[in-house]
Amino acid sequence: MDAMRTLAPGAEDSRDLGFGGRVALQTRNRFLNRDGSFNVRRVGLPFFRSLSAYHALLTISWPRFFLLSALGYVATNAAFAVAYLLCGPEALNGSKAVGLVPRYAEAFFFSVQTLATIGYGVLSPNGMAANLISALEALFGLMGFALVTGILFSRFSRPTPHITFSDKAVVAPFRSGQALMFRVANERSNQLTDVHARVILSRLEGPPPNRARRFHELSLDRPQVVFFPLHWVVVHPIDDGSPLRGITPEEFRAADSEILILLSAMDETFFQTVHVRSSYKPQEIAWGMKFADMFLRSEDGLVGIDMQKIHDLDPAH
Amino acid sequence: MDAMRTLAPGAEDSRDLGFGGRVALQTRNRFLNRDGSFNVRRVGLPFFRSLSAYHALLTISWPRFFLLSALGYVATNAAFAVAYLLCGPEALNGSKAVGLVPRYAEAFFFSVQTLATIGYGVLSPNGMAANLISALEALFGLMGFALVTGILFSRFSRPTPHITFSDKAVVAPFRSGQALMFRVANERSNQLTDVHARVILSRLEGPPPNRARRFHELSLDRPQVVFFPLHWVVVHPIDDGSPLRGITPEEFRAADSEILILLSAMDETFFQTVHVRSSYKPQEIAWGMKFADMFLRSEDGLVGIDMQKIHDLDPAH
Amino acid sequence: MDAMRTLAPGAEDSRDLGFGGRVALQTRNRFLNRDGSFNVRRVGLPFFRSLSAYHALLTISWPRFFLLSALGYVATNAAFAVAYLLCGPEALNGSKAVGLVPRYAEAFFFSVQTLATIGYGVLSPNGMAANLISALEALFGLMGFALVTGILFSRFSRPTPHITFSDKAVVAPFRSGQALMFRVANERSNQLTDVHARVILSRLEGPPPNRARRFHELSLDRPQVVFFPLHWVVVHPIDDGSPLRGITPEEFRAADSEILILLSAMDETFFQTVHVRSSYKPQEIAWGMKFADMFLRSEDGLVGIDMQKIHDLDPAH
Amino acid sequence: MDAMRTLAPGAEDSRDLGFGGRVALQTRNRFLNRDGSFNVRRVGLPFFRSLSAYHALLTISWPRFFLLSALGYVATNAAFAVAYLLCGPEALNGSKAVGLVPRYAEAFFFSVQTLATIGYGVLSPNGMAANLISALEALFGLMGFALVTGILFSRFSRPTPHITFSDKAVVAPFRSGQALMFRVANERSNQLTDVHARVILSRLEGPPPNRARRFHELSLDRPQVVFFPLHWVVVHPIDDGSPLRGITPEEFRAADSEILILLSAMDETFFQTVHVRSSYKPQEIAWGMKFADMFLRSEDGLVGIDMQKIHDLDPAH
Repeated sequence: MDAMRTLAPGAEDSRDLGFGGRVALQTRNRFLNRDGSFNVRRVGLPFFRSLSAYHALLTISWPRFFLLSALGYVATNAAFAVAYLLCGPEALNGSKAVGLVPRYAEAFFFSVQTLATIGYGVLSPNGMAANLISALEALFGLMGFALVTGILFSRFSRPTPHITFSDKAVVAPFRSGQALMFRVANERSNQLTDVHARVILSRLEGPPPNRARRFHELSLDRPQVVFFPLHWVVVHPIDDGSPLRGITPEEFRAADSEILILLSAMDETFFQTVHVRSSYKPQEIAWGMKFADMFLRSEDGLVGIDMQKIHDLDPAH
Repeated sequence: MDAMRTLAPGAEDSRDLGFGGRVALQTRNRFLNRDGSFNVRRVGLPFFRSLSAYHALLTISWPRFFLLSALGYVATNAAFAVAYLLCGPEALNGSKAVGLVPRYAEAFFFSVQTLATIGYGVLSPNGMAANLISALEALFGLMGFALVTGILFSRFSRPTPHITFSDKAVVAPFRSGQALMFRVANERSNQLTDVHARVILSRLEGPPPNRARRFHELSLDRPQVVFFPLHWVVVHPIDDGSPLRGITPEEFRAADSEILILLSAMDETFFQTVHVRSSYKPQEIAWGMKFADMFLRSEDGLVGIDMQKIHDLDPAH
Repeated sequence: MDAMRTLAPGAEDSRDLGFGGRVALQTRNRFLNRDGSFNVRRVGLPFFRSLSAYHALLTISWPRFFLLSALGYVATNAAFAVAYLLCGPEALNGSKAVGLVPRYAEAFFFSVQTLATIGYGVLSPNGMAANLISALEALFGLMGFALVTGILFSRFSRPTPHITFSDKAVVAPFRSGQALMFRVANERSNQLTDVHARVILSRLEGPPPNRARRFHELSLDRPQVVFFPLHWVVVHPIDDGSPLRGITPEEFRAADSEILILLSAMDETFFQTVHVRSSYKPQEIAWGMKFADMFLRSEDGLVGIDMQKIHDLDPAH
Repeated sequence: MDAMRTLAPGAEDSRDLGFGGRVALQTRNRFLNRDGSFNVRRVGLPFFRSLSAYHALLTISWPRFFLLSALGYVATNAAFAVAYLLCGPEALNGSKAVGLVPRYAEAFFFSVQTLATIGYGVLSPNGMAANLISALEALFGLMGFALVTGILFSRFSRPTPHITFSDKAVVAPFRSGQALMFRVANERSNQLTDVHARVILSRLEGPPPNRARRFHELSLDRPQVVFFPLHWVVVHPIDDGSPLRGITPEEFRAADSEILILLSAMDETFFQTVHVRSSYKPQEIAWGMKFADMFLRSEDGLVGIDMQKIHDLDPAH
């Protein structure tokens, strides 16, 4: 537990956790968006170096992905159609088209039949040049479709955990003291097991001009649950070891605090470890409130929760 | 080891492990079914938000999966057949059918030949509209079959560990005291390595009206085995640190106890970590019994076990 | 470190590590073969329950896999050919064959052209029945080839670490005492990182009739190496905490000892954790020997090892 | 922390970490190249045993991969074309070619149409022999393209983390003492989480002739960061426990020291653990310098870094 460790000032101390110290003085923006993406900017990287084509194609929206695929398909056929046209009027057996545009359309559809390896045969390549191009196009088609359909399937089958975080975290009585709490639940029917939470407090500390952002990992009453079929209230007890000890809501806000969260879990559909991030800023913390009961009172005695109540709060006393 | 830690009463204490405290008072149902699925209900989630299409398609039964695939295939061809019909009577070269139904059947089979990229060529698209539709259908077919066959292969190759749990757990003499034990064996020929067990006791504690469900992780004599070629007896010694210390079968039953188990292991076919869950309720615990010997007495001196004896019990003394 | 822990006698104590205690009395066979497979037998399992088709198809030999694939291909076409024949003599457009055998051959090759979605079109289905069968065959072909080629690729791309273990382990002077050592090297060009070793001593202990097999994990001087580009000598110091303390080669042999080893590592081709197992029996342990130098004395100053010397031993003094 | 542990001299002590002791005396080469590959040589392995075909095909350059694929495609078709020719002049329906070379070209393109399962049908197999060969070729084609496109997709989708290491490590004031530091940043848009660093000092120790290379793991002020959206300065405080305590740049160089680094992280595109290695030799360590500020001073208050400044140094005071 290094929650209370005070980092000494200096050039090197504030880059812990990959965030920067001085920078934070300029901004009241959040570092971590509620959806888990980072609110940061990196410049000075050559575009192609920073780009991971696969990552980009995995994470663009579905409409964009299908549009890109369709465009690639049309462009490839359009290019091969030009190649067939350039082979001369005898290049395609069975050709009946007259005039440039009809001939181009014919070559385009012949290209489709070759790229997708349909091969109706009404049109077929004639002569060495057209045959070579169609041989190349078949290879290109098989490899290209393998890439596109591979990405399609990866998108479809990629583990994308959907964890609902309560809209607000609360500071509520806990045992003989207080605790910071938020609750989470699994939205999906995928079973998650062995869920770990890590909670980090980010805030400004120290007097100006040495005021700098510090990061503290907050100890949790139970940092891990084995099973996660319903919901889980993650609890940081504000005890003597906590950096939140004795703090008021005003001080919390004045320090531009942010509660950063990383949940990791084993997704049993894939038997793969997945991650979800989120954060709470001061306006998303309810002091003196507690979470309302989510449990269902059902007739058949089955345990159940009402997911719509996950954000509901009650006064803490 | 937090086996003895008593959670203080309050709103936040009973959601450990993702289960709820008060709810359990209503029910004698088990939380965790013997097959590892959870006996819980979640309401209030929009259907499409909770649905993971991939997860659903991975976990439905094989007949259902093949039925769905076949239906999708028929429906797609039926829809494209309508599109070809709408292109008019000249849309298909080689068409010989007369009358709406024969023409629809012809268009349907032409669609099959295009979607599956067979392209016999006896029928082929004629005119811009039919050619465009067949180009679209080829793209659709390649992408659709990639999804269906990708899911098919994922279903086939997905690690599905089959661990047999003994029908009953026992409480039997162990060293100078008693222990709770159950035994497990790998049903499959896949080798499992580095098997970890976690055992959690769930029961009602405290006097009414504060009686609430509590969860205790039970310490194991050996929480892990490196190799798992035969069987393994998982042992929780009921020592001074155990929440089961001095408990009688009647008290165990009265507290609506449940022994929850999570096994994790490395499956060496996939070099992937897999999980198996199960549980024991009071009626599945044999007090004063011990497990019968499973070992084979073979002539050739090879070590072996008889898997049919995994559930066999003997009196403990 | 539980190396010195003595397990109490009883029904439950000897199944640690998934091995059995009493059984071992019957045999001088090794439990773990040098290639890492287990020398055990399990009976009483229904065949289909124990079978994991995917695991079986991944681990059969390459010739067997190709033979099975070819047989499946021939059988599928042979069956569909029967179906086409049953549709009557008019079922195939373009048919020229006369007589049952030629017609069957023709139907067989038409089936090939459909199953593999070639569709030359010289033969094509005629009539509702043949068209329906060919539509079914195309679907079956696409799904079947997805399974076969998926397994093919999984076999090809599956991480199969090849670690060479020295033929013999040695007991040699180490610091002020003795140590049990063996050495390992990576045969493959795949880089392995973060290699962990676990070494377990299995032997008979106690006086008859309570003589039973016990397992002890042996502590290692360095249980893990971060990098593994050359070779690694795994060292168990025979210190006061070691169950091998003061043991003679004769006692070691008389106890039917076996040194069981599990290596786990991150394979950087796949960024996947892989496992390798092996074992040493008494006749594979050289007392008073040490490993010969494997390093190359090269002119260009590059560090290198001669893998052929991995088994070489020198007298220890 | 075994940073200070002195390994005793002897045959077995210097192979820790998989590197060798004596060898290092011969060379001032680095063990670990800046790009993370090892500067070592292994001889004595049969070529095919050391080769992992999949690993090789994954790691060759893209041009080489495409060249190999194209060569395989041409060679396969060339071989099958010979087989068709050997079936005699009647083997292909629709053949119009006269003379060996035209007939070979025709057979070659027929093979393309079969291997890629296009099947225009202008050419089609005639007779038992040609039909059997085309059935075999279709199977071969489906399996071969599955391998090639599987490797293609694996290459494309393989996690290849790109971490920039600062050109130089520095030794700069830290708290009340000194520290060895280097900084790293993620070049890619893939998010990396839970980044762990392990830093190992390799150097020559002891008087001749027992001077040998020793390895020490260096303790880090913070060995892990949870989030890594910007950059991270990895810090080894040169405190009393550090093997670098009191060392001068000259001594550091004289000992042929090398700082070896392994970073591991969870790549959230794949939810897979990835590794990156690098090293610093004496000439890459700047004594008395510190890292320049990389943070952007932007108008909109968003936190940002300028990746081009990652290598920039300032005097340390």
